[in-house]
Amino acid sequence: MSELDNLTSPSIFIGRQGEDDIISFGSGQPDLPPPKEAIEGINIRQDLRYGLIQGEYDLRCALSREYPRSTAENFIITNGASEGLDLIFRAIGKGKVLLPKPYYYSYPHIIKLSGMEPVYTELNEGRIDLDDFKKKIDECTAVLINSPSNPTGRIESIETLKEIEDITSRKKIYVISDEVYKDLIYERENYHIQGNQVITVNSFSKTYAMCGVRVGYLWSSDQSIVDKAIEIKTHTSMNTNLVGQDMALRAMNAPREYIVAQQNIWRERRDLIYKGLCDLGLDLWKPEGAFYVLPRIDNPREFLWRLYRKYHVITYLGEWFGAPDRIRLSYALDKKEIEEGLNRIDLALKNRT
Amino acid sequence: MSELDNLTSPSIFIGRQGEDDIISFGSGQPDLPPPKEAIEGINIRQDLRYGLIQGEYDLRCALSREYPRSTAENFIITNGASEGLDLIFRAIGKGKVLLPKPYYYSYPHIIKLSGMEPVYTELNEGRIDLDDFKKKIDECTAVLINSPSNPTGRIESIETLKEIEDITSRKKIYVISDEVYKDLIYERENYHIQGNQVITVNSFSKTYAMCGVRVGYLWSSDQSIVDKAIEIKTHTSMNTNLVGQDMALRAMNAPREYIVAQQNIWRERRDLIYKGLCDLGLDLWKPEGAFYVLPRIDNPREFLWRLYRKYHVITYLGEWFGAPDRIRLSYALDKKEIEEGLNRIDLALKNRT
Repeated sequence: MSELDNLTSPSIFIGRQGEDDIISFGSGQPDLPPPKEAIEGINIRQDLRYGLIQGEYDLRCALSREYPRSTAENFIITNGASEGLDLIFRAIGKGKVLLPKPYYYSYPHIIKLSGMEPVYTELNEGRIDLDDFKKKIDECTAVLINSPSNPTGRIESIETLKEIEDITSRKKIYVISDEVYKDLIYERENYHIQGNQVITVNSFSKTYAMCGVRVGYLWSSDQSIVDKAIEIKTHTSMNTNLVGQDMALRAMNAPREYIVAQQNIWRERRDLIYKGLCDLGLDLWKPEGAFYVLPRIDNPREFLWRLYRKYHVITYLGEWFGAPDRIRLSYALDKKEIEEGLNRIDLALKNRT
Repeated sequence: MSELDNLTSPSIFIGRQGEDDIISFGSGQPDLPPPKEAIEGINIRQDLRYGLIQGEYDLRCALSREYPRSTAENFIITNGASEGLDLIFRAIGKGKVLLPKPYYYSYPHIIKLSGMEPVYTELNEGRIDLDDFKKKIDECTAVLINSPSNPTGRIESIETLKEIEDITSRKKIYVISDEVYKDLIYERENYHIQGNQVITVNSFSKTYAMCGVRVGYLWSSDQSIVDKAIEIKTHTSMNTNLVGQDMALRAMNAPREYIVAQQNIWRERRDLIYKGLCDLGLDLWKPEGAFYVLPRIDNPREFLWRLYRKYHVITYLGEWFGAPDRIRLSYALDKKEIEEGLNRIDLALKNRT
């Protein structure tokens, strides 16, 4: 079937999510509004000259107060976490990167674009398998971890994170920790993985619901990596947009209650979709963070396409994330839509040909 | 002298331009204000979700009216012209790039970062030498041209541009044309170099004095290059910041008189600095566009450092731009400052040790 052959990337659904009667579990971004602090009182300044490549000093200072033993010098403000990752891999520039699988679908592309090579370690129940990790880490220059994870919704245990700190610190292997969902953990506080080898990538996109503004950052205590990344950014994009940096700094003034209120909404949605899919008999991991579920499904391509064409429900293929026997659902939808989506999935499962 | 050994890039002057009594001919950005249209009425929208990776449709439509036989599909909105160049070279990905020398200082870096290799053709009086160009073009996959040029201030003749169109079209070699100074030509209208092999990179930064907002774009009639660049941007930065795109679209509503008024200011400054440096006996090309002069100077490192330390005048070393026997001056300063700067250069020249 040629239509199924076209299911090569999420881009096939672009522009379709807003169509009538579509329930989209596709795109991975908050549907909730940003905090009013990010928007109110923004005054577009008259001086629109270049800013520092590294990022506005005030914003980096504000961030440094969230990271132990840090100063503004440890941060670079980037065009979203995506550019942060791209700069880091380009700064390292060669060697192999240990990549847990399933993975966020851009990871293998970013790694290869920088001239590095991914080496995969299969997750166990959505979490890092330390035995396999240890077998493969020696051949690698870096490891990329993502907790909470898109697409698994799982978080790594603090013990695992500490063991990774220990292994990589002894072996002098970089740990790139993508923590864009750090404020969306249902089970515990975020644990900042630490050490001289650690490079953290983060973003204002998910915490403050401002994906389109494209402001992220990277943190490292390794000055040579920071300097190298600034040098690359000087040539490839220069400063991150100044208005976005203003909005990010103001968003940080949002009260803690804003984040807690969001977490509560996400937790309710998580409970609803997890129970709903379990009740339909699907096999899936319970999300502990972020807003994704990754149920196992028979014939995922056929199912996804029928679900879309006949029942107007968008889901993403697990194979885009290195999980060929699964589909990914983002639950960035209100509860009524999630319920309606679950009803339609029920029908699609019952009417399998 | 170890201080002179540190003169490796413009970054040594970062943060020093605003110091008391400093006259800076360093940074290459307009000092004039952006048009009021870019700023007034900007309403930070509540919906800050991802935009299209390719860029906002309205902005691409508005741009397509400036390019003959174009539609919104031919454009990608980028984080400044820098990202446009980076995406193109990554999309091409291998082979050699013919690069006129002197060049904008990021060019060799961007080319090498993408895995391509620069091949230099020496400019003649600041303009392309077609004989040398023809000798070297056959080994190349692409050529990068920049008219008006940073740092030479020269423009290529329309005849030269047409001959480049002809050669590259016959030989199927990409022409990447960096036209960020297209609205800053003193001698004639801009000529859009054309053809299936042409990829144009442009920006709102210089025309509308909004460098820090970081909105540029690339244009190509080759759909495969556009698609490849969008695919890369999907992984490396996603959409360009939405507020900046709003500002860019509004800036396009500025009346033609805004641009003409700016050109008149720049022309007066050009006349002032060109005559001033000639009167001091320096050998330089007359700028025909952009806002740079690149005079020849003896012992440029020693001169630049003495000019800075003793006379508090910042200039950039020509060697950063592939012109080791020259220094670069940006005349993005008001006339009084240019005059004062010229006086100090006069003193520095008279007091050579």
